Amino acid sequence: MGMTMTQKILASHAGLAEVKAGQLIMADLDLVLGNDITTPVAVNEFAKMKTTEVFDKKKIAIVPDHFAPNKDIKAAEQCKFIREFALDKKIENYFEVGEMGIEHALIPEKGLVVPGDVVIGADSHTCTYGALGAFSTGIGSTDMAAGMATGKAWFKVPEALRFELTGKPTKWVSGKDVILHIIGMIGVDGALYKSMEFTGEGLKNLSMDSRFTMANMAIEAGAKNGIFPVDEKTIEYVKEHSDREYKVFSADEDAVYEKVYEIDLGKVRPTVSFPHLPDNTRTIDEVGTVKVDQVVIGSCTNGRIEDIRVAAEILRGKKVAKGVRVLVFPGTQKIYLQAIEEGLVQDIVKAGAAFSTPTCGPCLGGHMGILAKGEKAVSTTNRNFVGRMGHVESEVYLASPAVAAASALTGYISNPENV
Amino acid sequence: MGMTMTQKILASHAGLAEVKAGQLIMADLDLVLGNDITTPVAVNEFAKMKTTEVFDKKKIAIVPDHFAPNKDIKAAEQCKFIREFALDKKIENYFEVGEMGIEHALIPEKGLVVPGDVVIGADSHTCTYGALGAFSTGIGSTDMAAGMATGKAWFKVPEALRFELTGKPTKWVSGKDVILHIIGMIGVDGALYKSMEFTGEGLKNLSMDSRFTMANMAIEAGAKNGIFPVDEKTIEYVKEHSDREYKVFSADEDAVYEKVYEIDLGKVRPTVSFPHLPDNTRTIDEVGTVKVDQVVIGSCTNGRIEDIRVAAEILRGKKVAKGVRVLVFPGTQKIYLQAIEEGLVQDIVKAGAAFSTPTCGPCLGGHMGILAKGEKAVSTTNRNFVGRMGHVESEVYLASPAVAAASALTGYISNPENV
Repeated sequence: MGMTMTQKILASHAGLAEVKAGQLIMADLDLVLGNDITTPVAVNEFAKMKTTEVFDKKKIAIVPDHFAPNKDIKAAEQCKFIREFALDKKIENYFEVGEMGIEHALIPEKGLVVPGDVVIGADSHTCTYGALGAFSTGIGSTDMAAGMATGKAWFKVPEALRFELTGKPTKWVSGKDVILHIIGMIGVDGALYKSMEFTGEGLKNLSMDSRFTMANMAIEAGAKNGIFPVDEKTIEYVKEHSDREYKVFSADEDAVYEKVYEIDLGKVRPTVSFPHLPDNTRTIDEVGTVKVDQVVIGSCTNGRIEDIRVAAEILRGKKVAKGVRVLVFPGTQKIYLQAIEEGLVQDIVKAGAAFSTPTCGPCLGGHMGILAKGEKAVSTTNRNFVGRMGHVESEVYLASPAVAAASALTGYISNPENV
Repeated sequence: MGMTMTQKILASHAGLAEVKAGQLIMADLDLVLGNDITTPVAVNEFAKMKTTEVFDKKKIAIVPDHFAPNKDIKAAEQCKFIREFALDKKIENYFEVGEMGIEHALIPEKGLVVPGDVVIGADSHTCTYGALGAFSTGIGSTDMAAGMATGKAWFKVPEALRFELTGKPTKWVSGKDVILHIIGMIGVDGALYKSMEFTGEGLKNLSMDSRFTMANMAIEAGAKNGIFPVDEKTIEYVKEHSDREYKVFSADEDAVYEKVYEIDLGKVRPTVSFPHLPDNTRTIDEVGTVKVDQVVIGSCTNGRIEDIRVAAEILRGKKVAKGVRVLVFPGTQKIYLQAIEEGLVQDIVKAGAAFSTPTCGPCLGGHMGILAKGEKAVSTTNRNFVGRMGHVESEVYLASPAVAAASALTGYISNPENV
């Protein structure tokens, strides 16, 4: 019986010729990741282990990004704690404020993930790296600690859902709309503990940035991981960012999928997730009148250069609507510099938006853009749970950078095709 | 008996030919200012007054800058509260996130203060505008409320100290060093309720940005206000930023000063205020070995274009020391755009610093750069009180942008003459 792409990667890292869905395996890890919220817990767990050394100083990455630059004294203490751990264990990939970025934008950019890798991260959106043809998944802090100590992790081999993509998205439709459309279709538990395997000739019409966005949100359908085949675009990206060797895995012809969904990208409309779940989607044609107080463009989901380009293209030469706070957060310092180089930051600031240093801040209600009672935000982030961006009576509407930028100009959730 | 510059401005606004130090007067106000911390209290006080309307919609400015972009739900509620007040009262100079800046950088830039004005602001560093030859002072929220209602405020006419400046500062010495030197000389209560009147031929060697910095920190010597004569540089600044008519006041020849200090600018050394008071100064030659964890460049004291230029000049082509977090905060969006235009932001980010959207955050231990226990920061901000930037056992060393940038490169408080 054939294996899916995910299953083949797991088999190779478990030293097995074959694995089956449901099988428990122990796999070698190529990268163990943590941030300023999850790493302190992992460090405390690590201290209880038999070893005092990490398994590989090059294969651990720690990124303070959630409450950094330090929001408050507690955040400062957490960041200090993990900084000292990284220094003590000589962890090479600790990224300080100033050289940092949002972890899931930073890690691929630094070339720390390549095709065929197995990656765990104590952050649910670690599934982002599936865009590179790697198996990558979010785990808890205890698993992070064990991973740092042993370089291994246990997995139950996931069953698979296949998403057969055809066609080409229209002008303002991007990976964000596609993944919101899919989550709307299958539900927030539609892929529970399964792998979401994206396939089909439509893939060639999705940029790497769009693929990162889609893999990033696989967890919002409950998936264990999301994964893309390695094609020319992937290879180009990897060569540009990493010197590491990589291995391309492909699904067997006779791989078993629990279900196959066919999606014509040309028919996907700009899509918005209404409060308070990502699967509560409506197309832009169905949103009606939703007045917004804040627009957030950025995060690990949509803070890449293409996202900033789209925002700038829509905002250029115009002004954000009076009374709307528009906050743009690039994923990394490199993306930030690129956005300045291309004049995008200037266009966005001239339109009346704030341009921040990289941080996860507003996405998780951390800092730098929290909502008051009754306020509404349209945001390119990944979750719109109750109170996610602030007050329990505030609302978050998830959308693409194009929809968010269009909404910034009108003050209402708007169709980028019309502004 | 002659009057000082401050006294003449107050007399004119009280409709009196003459005032004397110690006299109680009621003066007309040209501007009433508040921020997101002080305005909510003022709004509540305003609600108790006999009027429901503000005295002049054009002469009130409200700037959410301390905990904005919204740090947390409380900050979000405060900002929402003052936004709704500004909207309700049709206050013209309410500045939203994205169009905003740090109040004391923003207000002069927007042309809201001109020479001869009387300004009150519910923020202690309102004294900044003395650089423009205006009387400007910090007051409490209740006075802000009364000012918004009546357009008037009571003052006790201050006695005066005169600072006779001669000579020309050396390459890396700026207004920040001069004012720290002065505060070190006279103490944090050395000018208690007095006006600090800066005079002398040395003034021509101080840029407007240096003057803003000096007037800004008059409060750190306890002064009611700091004030500069209006010269060609002032006029040039005002013409560039404001269409308002202005009136130039000059001190009488026989004005009475309690004391006159003579300062040769050519002899002022780069100066650092050690914890935990601004008057605990040492010259850069006396600082010894002080390792720092964080460098902050920005704030209402030193977030202007010249400050960013100096920082970029020192950081350009180099890298910040490993383990040091460097945070740069421009005063306003205009300064930010100018800094991008000149390539300064790029130089600073390439050196490994974070470049933030304007906010007061780190200066007052608000957000975006808080210190953990035992951490030390060198900062271009204005106060180094116990716990000012975070944990009660952290330390802040006040310095110029040049000293701060030099320290960023070495990780120790350093002399810009040597890097």
